Amino acid sequence: MSVKINENYQLLKANYIFSEIDQRVEDYQNDHPQSDIIRMGVGDVTRPLTPTVEEAFRNAVREMGDPETFRGYGPYQGYDFLLDNIIEKDYASLGIKLERSEVFVSDGAKCDTGNIQEIFALDNKVAVTDPVYPVYVDSNVMAGRTGPMGDDGRYQNLVYLPCTEENGFVPELPQEEVDLIYLCYPNNPTGTTLTKEELKEWVDYARDHKSIILFDAAYESYIREDHIPHSIYEVEGAREVAIEFRSFSKNAGFTGTRCAFTVVPEELTGYDVDGKSHNLNQMWFRRQTTKFNGVSYPVQVAAQAVYSPEGQEEIKKTVDYYMNNASIIYNSLKTIGLKVHGGVNSPYIWVKTPEKMNSWQFFDLLLENVQIVGTPGVGFGPSGEGYFRLTAFNTLKNTEEAMERLSKLAI
Amino acid sequence: MSVKINENYQLLKANYIFSEIDQRVEDYQNDHPQSDIIRMGVGDVTRPLTPTVEEAFRNAVREMGDPETFRGYGPYQGYDFLLDNIIEKDYASLGIKLERSEVFVSDGAKCDTGNIQEIFALDNKVAVTDPVYPVYVDSNVMAGRTGPMGDDGRYQNLVYLPCTEENGFVPELPQEEVDLIYLCYPNNPTGTTLTKEELKEWVDYARDHKSIILFDAAYESYIREDHIPHSIYEVEGAREVAIEFRSFSKNAGFTGTRCAFTVVPEELTGYDVDGKSHNLNQMWFRRQTTKFNGVSYPVQVAAQAVYSPEGQEEIKKTVDYYMNNASIIYNSLKTIGLKVHGGVNSPYIWVKTPEKMNSWQFFDLLLENVQIVGTPGVGFGPSGEGYFRLTAFNTLKNTEEAMERLSKLAI
Repeated sequence: MSVKINENYQLLKANYIFSEIDQRVEDYQNDHPQSDIIRMGVGDVTRPLTPTVEEAFRNAVREMGDPETFRGYGPYQGYDFLLDNIIEKDYASLGIKLERSEVFVSDGAKCDTGNIQEIFALDNKVAVTDPVYPVYVDSNVMAGRTGPMGDDGRYQNLVYLPCTEENGFVPELPQEEVDLIYLCYPNNPTGTTLTKEELKEWVDYARDHKSIILFDAAYESYIREDHIPHSIYEVEGAREVAIEFRSFSKNAGFTGTRCAFTVVPEELTGYDVDGKSHNLNQMWFRRQTTKFNGVSYPVQVAAQAVYSPEGQEEIKKTVDYYMNNASIIYNSLKTIGLKVHGGVNSPYIWVKTPEKMNSWQFFDLLLENVQIVGTPGVGFGPSGEGYFRLTAFNTLKNTEEAMERLSKLAI
Repeated sequence: MSVKINENYQLLKANYIFSEIDQRVEDYQNDHPQSDIIRMGVGDVTRPLTPTVEEAFRNAVREMGDPETFRGYGPYQGYDFLLDNIIEKDYASLGIKLERSEVFVSDGAKCDTGNIQEIFALDNKVAVTDPVYPVYVDSNVMAGRTGPMGDDGRYQNLVYLPCTEENGFVPELPQEEVDLIYLCYPNNPTGTTLTKEELKEWVDYARDHKSIILFDAAYESYIREDHIPHSIYEVEGAREVAIEFRSFSKNAGFTGTRCAFTVVPEELTGYDVDGKSHNLNQMWFRRQTTKFNGVSYPVQVAAQAVYSPEGQEEIKKTVDYYMNNASIIYNSLKTIGLKVHGGVNSPYIWVKTPEKMNSWQFFDLLLENVQIVGTPGVGFGPSGEGYFRLTAFNTLKNTEEAMERLSKLAI
């Protein structure tokens, strides 16, 4: 006898894509200590917390230093002051009604989208768009829902829904029946969106097949066009089939502050082997109360401040700032003759790599010649090969400098 | 076809014990709105963040509001400034050498002790002391390592190591071979400790059987007696077999602030079915980088401040404050004729319930007659039946008031 490892980990590619990028950049920097690298790879923000948010955050820290106002463990799903703001300002404003019991505050959409699969059986069939945010795939590989990765870069027993120039990056409904469907809109990495009608096809599919849609809306605040839905619950019937993930990372600059939330409507149902239905909201509650202990109180106060009139005005400016970068990148890349997608309702610009160059070759070309770090599309899945992701999250200055450098690069 | 739930959740008792307590207290309070309830149930602290910690925390929030000092995603394992303090002040001071790569900062020991089982195979045999912190058990039930709970209150296929008055609450080595062993010292809930010699038996067992010890040291700072080890790594050979969990919750009042860390030494090895060895440190790194995004930067700065000379002096006072409560509770309960354990190197007092009264009966007795909330011992496992846990984390005033009330209770 001896302790046995979870062998599913052996199926994973050695590194999480962003650690791999970090490694290559570090190696380059060690070899070229003078180089001025501009990072447009990881989706990390650069704008500070806004004044209203920072002040509320700081005042809440002060409360923690006073025995009269100190807070220990908070309510399991988050403080009512935050839940109520989410319910009213993110959802009621869209005509969507939620109860407090349906919202779960957490320390990150990455954690929630990674952990949500735990409440489902291992023999569910999982579908992901391709390319896709690696967390959805890797968390299912680790749990044992897939076989090994084939030579085609696809894990066995995982259903890939290709999103390429050919289909305008809009995934088609799967040929085979699937139980869990990860969708992310505005999309990471392609920057594309789905219209309400397109999203309705997925909701209808899920209702017909008793599937669950895991809808990642972390980039919701970047939507600029009026006809694009901000929440999957804008689609009729979605409350019966969809879990929605949101985050304060990208709208309010919380990547280093950590706050997010997940909506699990009371109607959501899963089934046991006898076909008996079970309430998924209660299962997620059980998962979170057993393995999670809530978000830092001052962080929840900071998140609440995002919803104040001043906070809303300030974060709008932050998002506008990044979207100005997005449009600079979009236009610059077009000008030098590249095919460009995304960037309109999204901080991500999805570029077709120049002919005869794959994703990592383009990564190395940019790193070595113009010291720009992007993300190789193939890191998001086999259909991402031949694409490259740039993010609009850097400073305006760096973004302009990067585009200046790129304009001189013979591609 | 339809989406299938993780049926292991059906094996769980309906509620996490602390939610069950909250419910009973809420019901009582609704029926008796005038009652003045003193909570000594959940292990939540009441003393505020100390001035040095609060100030550092607040200053770090200010940094987040300035574009020059703003921080986005942090390093995967935590900031070096925090890792280095942990390594130097928690471990080097005990003669234990750790590398940065061996320490993983997280948002809570509950999360880490709940998630750690993911890197191990489902067919490992798991041993827990009984009574035990429910998270160790429930996280393994959810993963599918146990059968259903029998009439004896024990999950099938889980090895229980009874800790009762009869054996002085010191668990005996298991009769059958086990692969994963959860130990928590100073113990939650019994408040007992193991000597270095007693701990060495477990380390030797684990080395002989190629098992892994999951050592929860969340209450380390409450150790008062010189001969009690503060870390399992004080025992020779433990680096080969033990993962250690620590937290800022109970020493520095971080239950509502959220910071903890886990030590996974590089020597730790697990095996695949072919007997090939694998590095567990790398597996935990993979788990954390895939499903976790680090701890809030200001919170890490606050945790760092705990290690400053001023911070150390201040938190010593906080711990002394609670230990004074512990001694008041310990002595008061003795005086009224109850059998009392723990409370010497631990903020927990473990009481034998009066004859012919089980744990929940004693819970109801205290709630209804003297409005004191404790935790029924049976909530921690079948060997906890007939015991009751009180915590020293309330204010001195409430603790004294509670003991005053208890002294008048005819038991």
